[in-house]
Amino acid sequence: MEGASNLSFILNKPNDVSFAEKPIPSLQSPHDVLVAVNYTGICGSDVHYWLHGAIGHFVVKDPMVLGHESAGTVVEVGSAVKDLKKGDRIALEPGYPCRRCETCLGGRYNLCHDMVFAATPPYDGTLTGFWVAPHDFCYKLPDNVSLQEGALIEPLAVAVHITKQARVQPGQSVVVMGAGPVGLLCAAVAKSFGATKVVSVDIVQSKLDFAKDFAATHTYLSQRVSPEENARQLIAAAGLGAGADVVIDASGAEPSIQAALHVVRMGGTYVQGGMGKADITFPIMALCLKEVTARGSFRYGSGDYKLAIDLVAAGKVDVKKLVNGVVAFKDAEEAFKKVKEGQVIKILIAGPNEKDVGGMDTSVDEAKVQTAEKAKEEGGATCC
Amino acid sequence: MEGASNLSFILNKPNDVSFAEKPIPSLQSPHDVLVAVNYTGICGSDVHYWLHGAIGHFVVKDPMVLGHESAGTVVEVGSAVKDLKKGDRIALEPGYPCRRCETCLGGRYNLCHDMVFAATPPYDGTLTGFWVAPHDFCYKLPDNVSLQEGALIEPLAVAVHITKQARVQPGQSVVVMGAGPVGLLCAAVAKSFGATKVVSVDIVQSKLDFAKDFAATHTYLSQRVSPEENARQLIAAAGLGAGADVVIDASGAEPSIQAALHVVRMGGTYVQGGMGKADITFPIMALCLKEVTARGSFRYGSGDYKLAIDLVAAGKVDVKKLVNGVVAFKDAEEAFKKVKEGQVIKILIAGPNEKDVGGMDTSVDEAKVQTAEKAKEEGGATCC
Amino acid sequence: MEGASNLSFILNKPNDVSFAEKPIPSLQSPHDVLVAVNYTGICGSDVHYWLHGAIGHFVVKDPMVLGHESAGTVVEVGSAVKDLKKGDRIALEPGYPCRRCETCLGGRYNLCHDMVFAATPPYDGTLTGFWVAPHDFCYKLPDNVSLQEGALIEPLAVAVHITKQARVQPGQSVVVMGAGPVGLLCAAVAKSFGATKVVSVDIVQSKLDFAKDFAATHTYLSQRVSPEENARQLIAAAGLGAGADVVIDASGAEPSIQAALHVVRMGGTYVQGGMGKADITFPIMALCLKEVTARGSFRYGSGDYKLAIDLVAAGKVDVKKLVNGVVAFKDAEEAFKKVKEGQVIKILIAGPNEKDVGGMDTSVDEAKVQTAEKAKEEGGATCC
Amino acid sequence: MEGASNLSFILNKPNDVSFAEKPIPSLQSPHDVLVAVNYTGICGSDVHYWLHGAIGHFVVKDPMVLGHESAGTVVEVGSAVKDLKKGDRIALEPGYPCRRCETCLGGRYNLCHDMVFAATPPYDGTLTGFWVAPHDFCYKLPDNVSLQEGALIEPLAVAVHITKQARVQPGQSVVVMGAGPVGLLCAAVAKSFGATKVVSVDIVQSKLDFAKDFAATHTYLSQRVSPEENARQLIAAAGLGAGADVVIDASGAEPSIQAALHVVRMGGTYVQGGMGKADITFPIMALCLKEVTARGSFRYGSGDYKLAIDLVAAGKVDVKKLVNGVVAFKDAEEAFKKVKEGQVIKILIAGPNEKDVGGMDTSVDEAKVQTAEKAKEEGGATCC
Repeated sequence: MEGASNLSFILNKPNDVSFAEKPIPSLQSPHDVLVAVNYTGICGSDVHYWLHGAIGHFVVKDPMVLGHESAGTVVEVGSAVKDLKKGDRIALEPGYPCRRCETCLGGRYNLCHDMVFAATPPYDGTLTGFWVAPHDFCYKLPDNVSLQEGALIEPLAVAVHITKQARVQPGQSVVVMGAGPVGLLCAAVAKSFGATKVVSVDIVQSKLDFAKDFAATHTYLSQRVSPEENARQLIAAAGLGAGADVVIDASGAEPSIQAALHVVRMGGTYVQGGMGKADITFPIMALCLKEVTARGSFRYGSGDYKLAIDLVAAGKVDVKKLVNGVVAFKDAEEAFKKVKEGQVIKILIAGPNEKDVGGMDTSVDEAKVQTAEKAKEEGGATCC
Repeated sequence: MEGASNLSFILNKPNDVSFAEKPIPSLQSPHDVLVAVNYTGICGSDVHYWLHGAIGHFVVKDPMVLGHESAGTVVEVGSAVKDLKKGDRIALEPGYPCRRCETCLGGRYNLCHDMVFAATPPYDGTLTGFWVAPHDFCYKLPDNVSLQEGALIEPLAVAVHITKQARVQPGQSVVVMGAGPVGLLCAAVAKSFGATKVVSVDIVQSKLDFAKDFAATHTYLSQRVSPEENARQLIAAAGLGAGADVVIDASGAEPSIQAALHVVRMGGTYVQGGMGKADITFPIMALCLKEVTARGSFRYGSGDYKLAIDLVAAGKVDVKKLVNGVVAFKDAEEAFKKVKEGQVIKILIAGPNEKDVGGMDTSVDEAKVQTAEKAKEEGGATCC
Repeated sequence: MEGASNLSFILNKPNDVSFAEKPIPSLQSPHDVLVAVNYTGICGSDVHYWLHGAIGHFVVKDPMVLGHESAGTVVEVGSAVKDLKKGDRIALEPGYPCRRCETCLGGRYNLCHDMVFAATPPYDGTLTGFWVAPHDFCYKLPDNVSLQEGALIEPLAVAVHITKQARVQPGQSVVVMGAGPVGLLCAAVAKSFGATKVVSVDIVQSKLDFAKDFAATHTYLSQRVSPEENARQLIAAAGLGAGADVVIDASGAEPSIQAALHVVRMGGTYVQGGMGKADITFPIMALCLKEVTARGSFRYGSGDYKLAIDLVAAGKVDVKKLVNGVVAFKDAEEAFKKVKEGQVIKILIAGPNEKDVGGMDTSVDEAKVQTAEKAKEEGGATCC
Repeated sequence: MEGASNLSFILNKPNDVSFAEKPIPSLQSPHDVLVAVNYTGICGSDVHYWLHGAIGHFVVKDPMVLGHESAGTVVEVGSAVKDLKKGDRIALEPGYPCRRCETCLGGRYNLCHDMVFAATPPYDGTLTGFWVAPHDFCYKLPDNVSLQEGALIEPLAVAVHITKQARVQPGQSVVVMGAGPVGLLCAAVAKSFGATKVVSVDIVQSKLDFAKDFAATHTYLSQRVSPEENARQLIAAAGLGAGADVVIDASGAEPSIQAALHVVRMGGTYVQGGMGKADITFPIMALCLKEVTARGSFRYGSGDYKLAIDLVAAGKVDVKKLVNGVVAFKDAEEAFKKVKEGQVIKILIAGPNEKDVGGMDTSVDEAKVQTAEKAKEEGGATCC
């Protein structure tokens, strides 16, 4: 790795980032793999840390490398690693559980209290040159999945996990609140799970147009009316009869969540996948009297990365469509600004050693800008 | 049935009840059974209709017979009825679904849109002399279960359904918010399901004392602090470590529901069983980030009455302990007043033809009165 | 219905059938619908009754009308029927449960002890002119689903039920033993449920060729070797690694079932969907030590017809491909002979009042004939 | 540990055992714990290895220390161990999975391909002085659970896992085939899960008498009749109506398994928990037509040890009743002979450093001897 750079993109404090060359990390265990990072996507949470220095009780106290949506190439493997070898192209699962607590042994490692997760303080992220990970959190990409697609496996795994939490069954109707990256991916995943009707809901028509093209069978533009009234109109518009079998909230916005509970049918399922305000006004009696099953969804767990890759490889989810452009590592801050301004759906940052850097679609999309403004007003953040 | 009375206890409008002799009903189908009603308990919803004339969108427009927690004796069976005969003592399930919609055919008849439910407008209730029901909603009582216990099968079935919705597993810890009749019964059912810790929570110490004697392994007196703080104290007091496996809200009170979401562990389950305000402030991010499974619970369904009777027959739930007294049919209004005033846990009204009428424990319990007052303040109603 | 015929195709005793004009039936309940039968498919069980007069303990003692895979047109509706009207084209679910037992109320009506099922003795079947059914067992066909396709909803519902019993999840590998009509449909349904690999297995190469074209991603021609060895070769050929997530047996053949248990992975699922010998040699320790979940599948239940129709309407399962031809009612016996001889996958018989009768693909397919011979040797019958 | 012995009980080849002083093992990881073994029970599999040198494809090629049902005392903890300290009394889970494969990450570590399990070749067992284990496989015993009871947690965990695989629900009827140690424990666990009827079945009356005293509500002595006839008589004797909700086979015997499928009701569950012949004659159509869910059960997994300890601590399963005696380490071979001869239910061997050695109930129980003979004839082995 003569001449290889481990340049890292570091958040020092809110609105203050810098670059620094760090030592290339080394394997910590015979089960580890050293990975050269090729591409990294920007998540809403990255932007939120950048702007605010904290999400909930996770507070950035010391400088922290940003980024956690990455794909890379294997550079070195530990002595106990059999299923990967130098040169393998991989999607990188960026959180590592303890493997020893009841939660881990019980198969829900995403809920592990001792999780070490990239770019969640105090742990550094993947906007760097090289990364060390246990081999079972590195997923080899099939030949027909590119490294740029590989960087989108992370948000797709978020959507897979949400859709699994919703137990979407073939033939069901699924309403997805929010048409940001995760909402769009949820719509596509729900469709691949056999959902017959997939309704994307948003407050920006252009996002719905994109959703319709990407995965949705129906769309609904939220109105400035009561949640009950929005629910009535949505049900009528999409022909949902007695309500939707499943409603996924990928917006985190209070009015969306309220409408969700009025859209779901008796005995249906609602999953909260988007993050937003800690406490909201919630139609609890709708949940009670309709015997709704509600579930939260947090990150991803066992099998989610594997299925996400399968979906891309099988052509069921075309993640490339979400990417507006790829920028060089040195332009990382610029990319963050574009995301903040809502000018892009997804933007990738090439690793510091990556030569293949495409251009970016810089046409300003007014609708998208509006969305970002709206989101800011509502205090919501669509993130994993 | 020469000389038999079909005297009925009728709600005319809020705070206006009367008695009237009605014609004895006759079988409508060869599958029907005619039942002489022996005892009927009073539910919070009966009292609510009596005081307010409505629950949610169910509004009493025409005079309606009250009551739906009944046991009786079979008087006549239709030609197609094989499993019941004249003289059989039965617990009466008081709601009859359509049997033909997707919900019914799918096994969740309690969610049937066309449900005909006793004492839910516009349908008459069971505070009457005789009642016609399909045979499969009449459950024969074993010899060691009395008719008075039979009248308590209905609220016990509510608790069974809630506890099933919570998927309580052996060895789990279960917190029950509210120590009214349904909360007490949930605690007992959870214990019979193998829960190792059962924590009853209320705002009245005397109710917790009763709960401890009845079923709870631990109790917690809610404090006037934040939900987070109540959760912390409750977890510490009951030794719940990382939180409760299951939390059941049988109170319908906003602070209880808020605390419930903070008490439940990562990946745990919360069930809303108590009715209260339609919309409340709700810690939605706790649900999301802990991947809580939340479920509503409404009435009871397939297998619930059968299991409720089994639990009483096997001595696992001693429902008799909840009964403060039995009054004659003519004293029905008096009984409603006692319940309203919070002076009793459960009171039974004998049928108009029933001779066996016990006395009532008329000692005023200050603590109970306080509870009733509190409940009124909070606008909540603990009911099925 | 002046001039309408209720000609029926009657099994008198093994190998003895006749036609008779029967009185047109009338509605028995306000919930009933009178249907003119347009097309009826022939099931393996119809042929088995025709040849042997019995299946297991179901014995044809009196003359019985054959047929149960039908689509028709609504002629008259009862006074309580709201969702259907004269002229509606429907798929006909041919079994009617009691709606009152624990099994029915619990949502598994296909297991009802008092099921009245068409062409299962002593009940007449649907190879007749007119049929009366409860409205909720008549499923309106969408405009883009033809009546001939409607007659194939029944076997497709069998496959849907089997695949649901297998709990097929997106991304899983599914092996289907047997490439007869039900096996083919299971393969297609599994794919629509999101299975990534679908492996069809049979002993006749031409059937595998058809399966590959119809739905399978891989095929495997069973060899005359031990079940363990067939399993090894199958796993290697289809790249199943540690075994298949799900194995469905749609053959009923002993060697297939044995191989199934060796093909399924640790913790995987195996479903028995095909009928054959009552008792077989079975690798019970493979089930025990691998913690396999095995389930039987019998007919179809709640939601299965609806989903089957959705799959056809959405173009996910092209049932038309299975039909070799349509014959006039008077040629019913001829059609049974073709099925018996294995010359067809599926053949439809037009109702006695149906004018639209297509020709039949009479080209003898040697491979298919071989299959039928093989099946006879093994004593198996692929049927619902 | 001056003077402490690490004497081990070693199987050299079939019927050839010896003792040897081995070096005391040392911690391999900061997560490890060093445990002094206090008591070890003898499992059917230990005896089987002793007599035959192999179970299935597990063959003893090199000398192997026997034993895996142990409790001990913590002697030393690794630097990362927080929840255990020197002197803690623990039950020892004797199998250690890889924690890295899909199966482990998915929460079913008992199915891990790379499991290292005590006294399963080529790995040494726990009939030794000291044992090293990862801390999360050492379960602290509550004060009211003795070390001798601790040695019975292993077979109880086997029974817990079987009963969980059966998804036993409160109010259900459960039939347990076989009244050996695991069958008896399954009966007790099923009862603690809320089963209303628990029927123990065996071929030896004295074992049934013990079962009745220990946990069963009913017993049935298998007759030398067909499985169907045994099923009919069993159902009648125990009043199971349409069949048992759940049947657990803890015998591994072919006739028991056959009867199991005829005893279970439509839609019921059957679990194979006992090991025996690899292939048997099996009523596959009963499984198919009744839509039985069958599951295998292998060892124990996440949460099973914890629940087993809870059940003992709560007084729900009185494992002490199963113990016929405790012998000194030097008498280990003698103890194996007693188990082989069927003279005991459970016998414990004290660790080489353990002073507290009780006597043994040496009264020969004819019935038990008969059982052992029978079991030998049938080639079955009740083991974990």
